[in-house]
Amino acid sequence: MPRHFESAPGLCDKPDRDTQSYLFNQTMLRIKDPAVSLDFYTRVLGMRLIRKLDFPEAKFTLYFLTYLNDTEATEVPEDDAKRLTYTFGRQAMLELTHNWGTEDDADFQYHNGNDQPQGFGHIGITVPDVYAAAERFESLDVTFVKKPDDGRMKGLAFIKDPDGYWIEILQADMMERQSQAAASA
Amino acid sequence: MPRHFESAPGLCDKPDRDTQSYLFNQTMLRIKDPAVSLDFYTRVLGMRLIRKLDFPEAKFTLYFLTYLNDTEATEVPEDDAKRLTYTFGRQAMLELTHNWGTEDDADFQYHNGNDQPQGFGHIGITVPDVYAAAERFESLDVTFVKKPDDGRMKGLAFIKDPDGYWIEILQADMMERQSQAAASA
Repeated sequence: MPRHFESAPGLCDKPDRDTQSYLFNQTMLRIKDPAVSLDFYTRVLGMRLIRKLDFPEAKFTLYFLTYLNDTEATEVPEDDAKRLTYTFGRQAMLELTHNWGTEDDADFQYHNGNDQPQGFGHIGITVPDVYAAAERFESLDVTFVKKPDDGRMKGLAFIKDPDGYWIEILQADMMERQSQAAASA
Repeated sequence: MPRHFESAPGLCDKPDRDTQSYLFNQTMLRIKDPAVSLDFYTRVLGMRLIRKLDFPEAKFTLYFLTYLNDTEATEVPEDDAKRLTYTFGRQAMLELTHNWGTEDDADFQYHNGNDQPQGFGHIGITVPDVYAAAERFESLDVTFVKKPDDGRMKGLAFIKDPDGYWIEILQADMMERQSQAAASA
């Protein structure tokens, strides 16, 4: 079993054993209006709210969302404290941070990282059929950055969340299929 | 099994069945110098490079990294095309985008989303022992935004990656333990 599956400068082949049980837990985005963002991430994208944490003194709330497959859905504890440990102990949590009051400021807007100055690019959601998903998003009036057949990269889409953050919509086997099709053409 | 585990405005309790097999696949960050970032993410943080994609015409490269637990490590295909499908079909991938040439521009710097204008906040890595991890990061000369006992939130740290992106270092059961300790005090 190789440590890495590609070669590239900088790769470490003997990482510290201490890092063996590290895991990539969360990605945090600030949001302006939780009612709008929760509607988008749960109704349009189908995520679930696992845990919410209010910090009244500092006037902010954290929302932790993810997808649950059938196995995962049976593992989520009902007890609040234990569900918090579950939230911090698993992969692929989306953390939305709401600083109270921004939703009442008509001019307030967060920076999406793709306009200048650039940095963060996007989060990405894998769907079973990217064309079907894009059609569904169109019917729900979602804003597109790129539809699946726009531009040179066919078969993947980018949409915007309510704050303007980009979300790539991709199909796991699309590039494998495309390279097979190109090879047999 | 509840759809959501907390209540909040905007939550959708009857999501479209089409979203049932969606998954949160990736988070993309632009990086200035892949040799420096790959060293950091593999040596310091212990991630593995699963797939690399070069786009010579558009002059950029994508690096897909994650942690693999024992089960996952046996599931990664050796074949490049199938490993790409694997990369896009699982949770918790970190995608690092390198636009060729930025590493040679001394003044070039990406925006981390925490300086103004704000948006993206951080990614988060869960570790078995946040104090041990912080000690290890100190010994490796990692830059800290916050050490575990700085400020009011005890028991969690923030470090910076080579581009200045914030990485939260957290321990899954820390808040559960703290609330137990507070309750019995």
